[in-house]
Amino acid sequence: MGDKKKIVQCVPNFSEGRDLQKIEEIVNAFRGKEAVKLLDYSRDEDHNRAVVTVVGEPEALKAAVIEAIGRAIKVIDMTEHEGQHPRMGAVDVVPFIPIRNVTMEETVKLAQAVAKEVSAEFNLPIFLYEKAATSPERENLAKVRKGQFEGMSEKLKQPEWQPDFGPREMHPTAGVTAVGARMPLVAYNVNLDTDKLEIADKIAKNVRHISGGLRYCKGMGVELKERGIVQVSMNMTDYTKTALYRVFELIKIEAKRYGVNIVGSEIVGSVPMEALVDTAAYYLGLEDFTMEQVLEARLME
Amino acid sequence: MGDKKKIVQCVPNFSEGRDLQKIEEIVNAFRGKEAVKLLDYSRDEDHNRAVVTVVGEPEALKAAVIEAIGRAIKVIDMTEHEGQHPRMGAVDVVPFIPIRNVTMEETVKLAQAVAKEVSAEFNLPIFLYEKAATSPERENLAKVRKGQFEGMSEKLKQPEWQPDFGPREMHPTAGVTAVGARMPLVAYNVNLDTDKLEIADKIAKNVRHISGGLRYCKGMGVELKERGIVQVSMNMTDYTKTALYRVFELIKIEAKRYGVNIVGSEIVGSVPMEALVDTAAYYLGLEDFTMEQVLEARLME
Repeated sequence: MGDKKKIVQCVPNFSEGRDLQKIEEIVNAFRGKEAVKLLDYSRDEDHNRAVVTVVGEPEALKAAVIEAIGRAIKVIDMTEHEGQHPRMGAVDVVPFIPIRNVTMEETVKLAQAVAKEVSAEFNLPIFLYEKAATSPERENLAKVRKGQFEGMSEKLKQPEWQPDFGPREMHPTAGVTAVGARMPLVAYNVNLDTDKLEIADKIAKNVRHISGGLRYCKGMGVELKERGIVQVSMNMTDYTKTALYRVFELIKIEAKRYGVNIVGSEIVGSVPMEALVDTAAYYLGLEDFTMEQVLEARLME
Repeated sequence: MGDKKKIVQCVPNFSEGRDLQKIEEIVNAFRGKEAVKLLDYSRDEDHNRAVVTVVGEPEALKAAVIEAIGRAIKVIDMTEHEGQHPRMGAVDVVPFIPIRNVTMEETVKLAQAVAKEVSAEFNLPIFLYEKAATSPERENLAKVRKGQFEGMSEKLKQPEWQPDFGPREMHPTAGVTAVGARMPLVAYNVNLDTDKLEIADKIAKNVRHISGGLRYCKGMGVELKERGIVQVSMNMTDYTKTALYRVFELIKIEAKRYGVNIVGSEIVGSVPMEALVDTAAYYLGLEDFTMEQVLEARLME
């Protein structure tokens, strides 16, 4: 229990979702390491892809991620890969996420350092994306990945697609990797007491960024057929700037015009403590509250 | 970052609030120890008393607390002690508080183990109190401490005040110590937009346990003269059973009958994460949410 421990999360996506032995070999890079904790990993056979969630102190995490990337390059051959999920490399994307006592700037630097080492060690072209992007066109992962593995050879020749690190030729079996930095995503859904999908869709359009809503909210309407209701299904891409309670209250207000009520909401997967503490502080009207007052925040220093 | 780390808090009160050197000597027992973290300590000259807040894994915490008690017994002479705060010993009270992955039962056992070792090692009579009490009369610390240091010699002779551990004679310079177990206290105040103290007092009476209110709430009305408002000042003695949002909403309802509104609330000092997560979950109507979804809860496993 040292002083103000820095914690970063990494959610690398590997292009292997079927061969359990290979997946274990990659994931083992995160096991038994000091100051690194494997939180979760899952695979999808249709996507033929594995997603790992790991947290750790920056230097230790960096070493473990580089080790895992090396293992993935060794066991995955993209010339034989097929799956439903878009992908351009054996190690498709490696986002770093600031969790505690770490700024986005430091997280971007960590992403850059990993990109630099990995590109040199494995002769792998690397694009930096999202907050680590070196130009606006590279912020969006979909744009970076466009053309996928099969099209990368050609894409790298285009003047605007010179990789940020590594050779201008794709790795023969591992393709290209995107390394980035982003805020934690919160998958947040609000359930409505109607079965009319168009109402959820309309509300989603009103609250999401792209169509005029809140800056860090993506969303769409979804039917929950078993329950006979619909939901506004969202990804909150920066809960520190677009608070959960704000989108919740806004959906409540929008739902009113259809005579519809919120029946509840749900967080899918993990959520940073601060997103919920902030929500509690809003509803209780807490004055002068700081995160340092949360006992667990002190425990993790 | 091991597996489901157990964390207990201890808030020992020492009868020394003036001699900084002695206080440091006691507090040093909590410094530089593996799996023990000193969170805070403060002293009060008028009370002539120091309060330490420390957390740790049970065995490590136990050893550090016993060491601190030994140091306090060595440096504090109660025959020369005077101060405004009631006290019966050099180490007046030692409450243990379950924080993470620890039950109250385990916490009581830890208190018993500390009491047993300390009583044997230092020849100190010990009463167990609150959740560790061996009879209902010993639950309330004020009752246990009644008579204070000066009256302990006589008190120990009474048949109903045989100590739970240690000799039936008080320690000549260290007196008697109370060791106990309790839930974390949350100091929670709700501010009203009126300057009428009687309204805060009436509301406090309605919401606090003793006069018919919520089971784990103590409270009274307080004037905030500088702001020209009043507040319902409370101690929540078990936030897992009497939730913060419940008392907040109840105060809102009670305030209505006086045409008064809540202007805000405040948490004084520290609060367990769960108390605020539970509050957020209530207001967002979160379905199927578990504490394991909070990223920081996973980090501390």
